[in-house]
Amino acid sequence: MSTPVERPARRSGADGRIFAAALDLLRSRGPLAVNVESVAAASGVAKTTIYRRYRNREALLTAVITAASEAVPLPTNLSTRETLGWVLRHARDTIEQVIGRGTVAAVLSNVDPEFTNLLLEMIRTSTRPLRENLRARAAAGELPDDMDIELVMSMLLGVVIAELIRGRQTDDEWVESVLALIWPAFEARGLLAS
Amino acid sequence: MSTPVERPARRSGADGRIFAAALDLLRSRGPLAVNVESVAAASGVAKTTIYRRYRNREALLTAVITAASEAVPLPTNLSTRETLGWVLRHARDTIEQVIGRGTVAAVLSNVDPEFTNLLLEMIRTSTRPLRENLRARAAAGELPDDMDIELVMSMLLGVVIAELIRGRQTDDEWVESVLALIWPAFEARGLLAS
Repeated sequence: MSTPVERPARRSGADGRIFAAALDLLRSRGPLAVNVESVAAASGVAKTTIYRRYRNREALLTAVITAASEAVPLPTNLSTRETLGWVLRHARDTIEQVIGRGTVAAVLSNVDPEFTNLLLEMIRTSTRPLRENLRARAAAGELPDDMDIELVMSMLLGVVIAELIRGRQTDDEWVESVLALIWPAFEARGLLAS
Repeated sequence: MSTPVERPARRSGADGRIFAAALDLLRSRGPLAVNVESVAAASGVAKTTIYRRYRNREALLTAVITAASEAVPLPTNLSTRETLGWVLRHARDTIEQVIGRGTVAAVLSNVDPEFTNLLLEMIRTSTRPLRENLRARAAAGELPDDMDIELVMSMLLGVVIAELIRGRQTDDEWVESVLALIWPAFEARGLLAS
């Protein structure tokens, strides 16, 4: 099964050019390279126009990564297993196609504390639907009710990042092999209870 | 339960000073900052002495990261679950105390392809005892015999890195909560077969 690569919806006009330039700079040169000056130069949008929309670098970065992270909502009509598969593919595509590996690396090494805080806040916000989805499943008895949901999210994000570090494939067949490995953790106690 | 932080064994004399300086540079400024010149300056060991022992930067880096990764051998008298716990603690301590987060970040974003290759080769070599340990357990029926061992290693490494990225605790209590989460994947089929 092949899934299309997820990309944030295109915005038109100045915002579209600003967001595209900021994400390009982020992917190619990391968070320290993204500021109002560099985005103005790369997008061709005047600095005064950018400042009219975004008070400062922090407001600009917040708008860009919020838009990137909210572009693809969590589908609500999936089984638990399909949801986990979607999360793995979405994490992979977001890192590889939207924010770039360098952005994840920059947060890991905390080269830009302001950006680290922004991105972690973005992760917290954008993963809220997933957290609530998994909590509702646990409450409904579809998952172990004492399951550590935060740890599940780190496990899903982590296995993607570790494979990227190790230079291994993360195609859709790989997603299935991850699901085959971890699935017993999501159903074992359900089996025992039934 | 508290475990002592693992550090590579100290070497005495010039090698000890060279290795300590190279690891300090790696942790604090990343792989691009490590070369014969910078190590000579930081260690106080003459460049000619370093070149007498290590043909070039690559040979020096290889020796340093090999020594760092082989300093703490996998214990052989542990249960499967204890072995997984040891791996989580060892991965955490190696990243936090020995090579540094910046080194992992540098490999993820591949800022120095020569170093990336060296470190990935080091990971392959230093994880060989673990790989063989888990394969032997699978062959002996202690683990599912079709378990994807490479994926298990990425999952263990990944959950540590994701927690570091997210700024969450990775203490020994956390290790136990990871084991509680993932353990069904390691025993589920054993339970069904018994």
